[in-house]
Amino acid sequence: MTAIDLNSDLGESYGAWGMGDDTAMLALVSSANVACGFHAGDPLGILRTARAAAEKGVSIGAHVSYPDRVGFGRRDMDVASHELTADVIYQIGALKGIAAAAGVTVGYVKPHGALYNRIARDPKQAQAVIDGIKAVDPSLVLMGLANTPILKLARDCGLKTVAEAFADRAYTPDGDLVSRREPGAVLHDPQLIARRMLQLAHEGTLEAIDGSTIKIDAQSICVHGDSPSAVSIAMEIRRVFEVDGIAVRSFLAA
Amino acid sequence: MTAIDLNSDLGESYGAWGMGDDTAMLALVSSANVACGFHAGDPLGILRTARAAAEKGVSIGAHVSYPDRVGFGRRDMDVASHELTADVIYQIGALKGIAAAAGVTVGYVKPHGALYNRIARDPKQAQAVIDGIKAVDPSLVLMGLANTPILKLARDCGLKTVAEAFADRAYTPDGDLVSRREPGAVLHDPQLIARRMLQLAHEGTLEAIDGSTIKIDAQSICVHGDSPSAVSIAMEIRRVFEVDGIAVRSFLAA
Amino acid sequence: MTAIDLNSDLGESYGAWGMGDDTAMLALVSSANVACGFHAGDPLGILRTARAAAEKGVSIGAHVSYPDRVGFGRRDMDVASHELTADVIYQIGALKGIAAAAGVTVGYVKPHGALYNRIARDPKQAQAVIDGIKAVDPSLVLMGLANTPILKLARDCGLKTVAEAFADRAYTPDGDLVSRREPGAVLHDPQLIARRMLQLAHEGTLEAIDGSTIKIDAQSICVHGDSPSAVSIAMEIRRVFEVDGIAVRSFLAA
Amino acid sequence: MTAIDLNSDLGESYGAWGMGDDTAMLALVSSANVACGFHAGDPLGILRTARAAAEKGVSIGAHVSYPDRVGFGRRDMDVASHELTADVIYQIGALKGIAAAAGVTVGYVKPHGALYNRIARDPKQAQAVIDGIKAVDPSLVLMGLANTPILKLARDCGLKTVAEAFADRAYTPDGDLVSRREPGAVLHDPQLIARRMLQLAHEGTLEAIDGSTIKIDAQSICVHGDSPSAVSIAMEIRRVFEVDGIAVRSFLAA
Repeated sequence: MTAIDLNSDLGESYGAWGMGDDTAMLALVSSANVACGFHAGDPLGILRTARAAAEKGVSIGAHVSYPDRVGFGRRDMDVASHELTADVIYQIGALKGIAAAAGVTVGYVKPHGALYNRIARDPKQAQAVIDGIKAVDPSLVLMGLANTPILKLARDCGLKTVAEAFADRAYTPDGDLVSRREPGAVLHDPQLIARRMLQLAHEGTLEAIDGSTIKIDAQSICVHGDSPSAVSIAMEIRRVFEVDGIAVRSFLAA
Repeated sequence: MTAIDLNSDLGESYGAWGMGDDTAMLALVSSANVACGFHAGDPLGILRTARAAAEKGVSIGAHVSYPDRVGFGRRDMDVASHELTADVIYQIGALKGIAAAAGVTVGYVKPHGALYNRIARDPKQAQAVIDGIKAVDPSLVLMGLANTPILKLARDCGLKTVAEAFADRAYTPDGDLVSRREPGAVLHDPQLIARRMLQLAHEGTLEAIDGSTIKIDAQSICVHGDSPSAVSIAMEIRRVFEVDGIAVRSFLAA
Repeated sequence: MTAIDLNSDLGESYGAWGMGDDTAMLALVSSANVACGFHAGDPLGILRTARAAAEKGVSIGAHVSYPDRVGFGRRDMDVASHELTADVIYQIGALKGIAAAAGVTVGYVKPHGALYNRIARDPKQAQAVIDGIKAVDPSLVLMGLANTPILKLARDCGLKTVAEAFADRAYTPDGDLVSRREPGAVLHDPQLIARRMLQLAHEGTLEAIDGSTIKIDAQSICVHGDSPSAVSIAMEIRRVFEVDGIAVRSFLAA
Repeated sequence: MTAIDLNSDLGESYGAWGMGDDTAMLALVSSANVACGFHAGDPLGILRTARAAAEKGVSIGAHVSYPDRVGFGRRDMDVASHELTADVIYQIGALKGIAAAAGVTVGYVKPHGALYNRIARDPKQAQAVIDGIKAVDPSLVLMGLANTPILKLARDCGLKTVAEAFADRAYTPDGDLVSRREPGAVLHDPQLIARRMLQLAHEGTLEAIDGSTIKIDAQSICVHGDSPSAVSIAMEIRRVFEVDGIAVRSFLAA
């Protein structure tokens, strides 16, 4: 039976400010990328999300970020390698503490926002993140963008990796994400998105923005994004997957 | 052979701002209360302190604080219990991550500043801190002010505790610290301080500010404080202890 | 013609996190208490709110707070007087800069949350806030809770003051707010609230929680609160005021 | 009589953490670039520096920065233009409030650290800074690196500008600063530095690192830097200037 992971960015509230619908998403995904306090997430909010994930049997990953709360970790920063490594260690440790209090463990690391995009192709910052992960717990899996160099770099360094595709994003013929500045970069139609993800799960391919077919080797699908329709997208993906006999299961459960 | 622990607040730099002389103090103390980022300490600075402590064989404790960097954790805050518990879990977790990267473990928790003073006698916030420690790792030892109710409360909750005395502070006849607002509250003379600590180590007593003798049941001596002469005080204590055959050894090593 | 001010806490988003419906409220109130960055509000969000208020002709006040973003300024803090004075100066200055960029001026200061409650009756922190206001601009009006000592203290110090009542809060027979921990402390029914505010505007009285009638000398009504129905409450108040010929007008316009 | 401005970065303490010797420097410089809270400076510390500058008759400038306290504003950030403009407005406003409380006014703006370097040649971020300055107070002077495009851009936008040279930095034959990563980039010898500044003041030239003579059209000299010998450098510059009859005077005093 084919199985794939669905992941989403959660725990992104901050103090009095809410964000997203963690409860609804935790009923739909198999992996939760939990904010660690640098771009979002206060300790109490993170703890609540970790407990809710634990209750639902959803895997927990550390959604580490640049230290930029007001920018939500979305702004590229020239952080020195030794600073970035320490930032990653600190955030993973903090989430491990929270996870322990929730009776679960952190299984993977998915860098967030600008850091995620930067390390996909910048070997210097990628190495700093990898070094941080290895220093705190080398059994952690690194989740990264399918088809980007960081995955091989991480494996060469001894980390396990998992590649992810984005449900609500268009792809270039090269297998890259279409930049958000381009028209058509973000998809909104749950039916269309679900059909694309079905093709991805069955065949490991997606239709690129020019109509060509590209190969995407992904073991996880990110159903979050900036889309306000994240919940309906995730529901539709689960529905078509169920019809087609595709199991939604954390890659960590394999 | 009599043995006692010497502890100091370390890792309190922040980014470009330095504080204290961690290198000098780590050569003198047996336990390092390491800042966790809420009152002081950025990830890279904390990591450096943890590595230096590891190298010297100094035990590491989590110096958890209210979230008040600009106030250095010195201002009382009415933090709700569930927030405080989560803040403690997060900070301990972060330091555990850093400690893992330095190849050591966190052995104890010593709350910092206003939180330290508050929980010594406020059972509500004390319970919240105890709950946080137990949630993340019930084997952690709580370090608290000798002669205050939190120690019994923590033990009743199943935590191990260690009581500490302050080398550079005067005591009331009741065994309390003399408030910093009173004259004579802070001691500065290394010789006098060392003689007092000798008496504490041998007899478990100190001379109070009124000349009476009080019983202080402490297994650790805090040699840090606001005194700029922290290093010379610690050196003099070590010197007289050595002369008198008192070992300086972390309470965790027992 | 009777006139009264309606004020609301606005500009309380932070980066990617939204809060409240500033656009809707700015169409209904005559004064906007704009967050200054310490409990809420990032520069861009504050600027947008100031520009929107300017466009609607709504007066702008500085909603100064303790430095506690994660706690949304709702937690009491023992800030020293000279620190608090400087914090107030800094926040007012920042908002004045933003207001200048929006082509308007800051007319008043309304402390926020825990600071608001604390200074209503704590003369030490109240004095520190008054000192801050006077230092930066003695023509600013201080908005405070009706029937509390800070108003006289501020006037004795040479500041103009305006007293406010809370639309959605129950009052004790002494004219105090019923603590939120008590049942019935927060009112939710827009019709009931509007009727109460009508009585306040016409007669300067309110029915206390025990049914007695109390005198409330208020020139402004706060229509914000934790109520998610803030917009409908404000709309209903405006509707009944219009029917009864009560003008809604900033106290600064007098 | 020839006159030149000496400026230094001041007010860079943060809460319990000190930095630099503001008192000593304020006796030597004619302009103080005062931190505004984004890379350094808490309100009380900034207020103290502003008061000390006021007492010494030293001009005050807003040392605005990226929002990166842990990185001391030294890390390049991809801040969007509208965010950067608002950040600049907020910081200038905050310092104007502080200055008002100290009985003085802010006369100029000197961006700090990574922002300073970025805008020297990046027209997009430069424009955002210029827009912020103009929005809050178009009479403010922009201080920027001599020989860089931002000065003309700012003047074309209607701002007055002042160009500065760095006392303790080596220059390339093109009139650029030698990168700190290169050997010889930072000068340490007060006598050598003072002789160079004498030549700059008299002839508007400096010897570049290759021995060639370059033209530097600067009306201000920055005597701060990372050099721990900032005070002795400033003293020596003042000494040789006095001998040669060069007045040290704020460009704002002209």
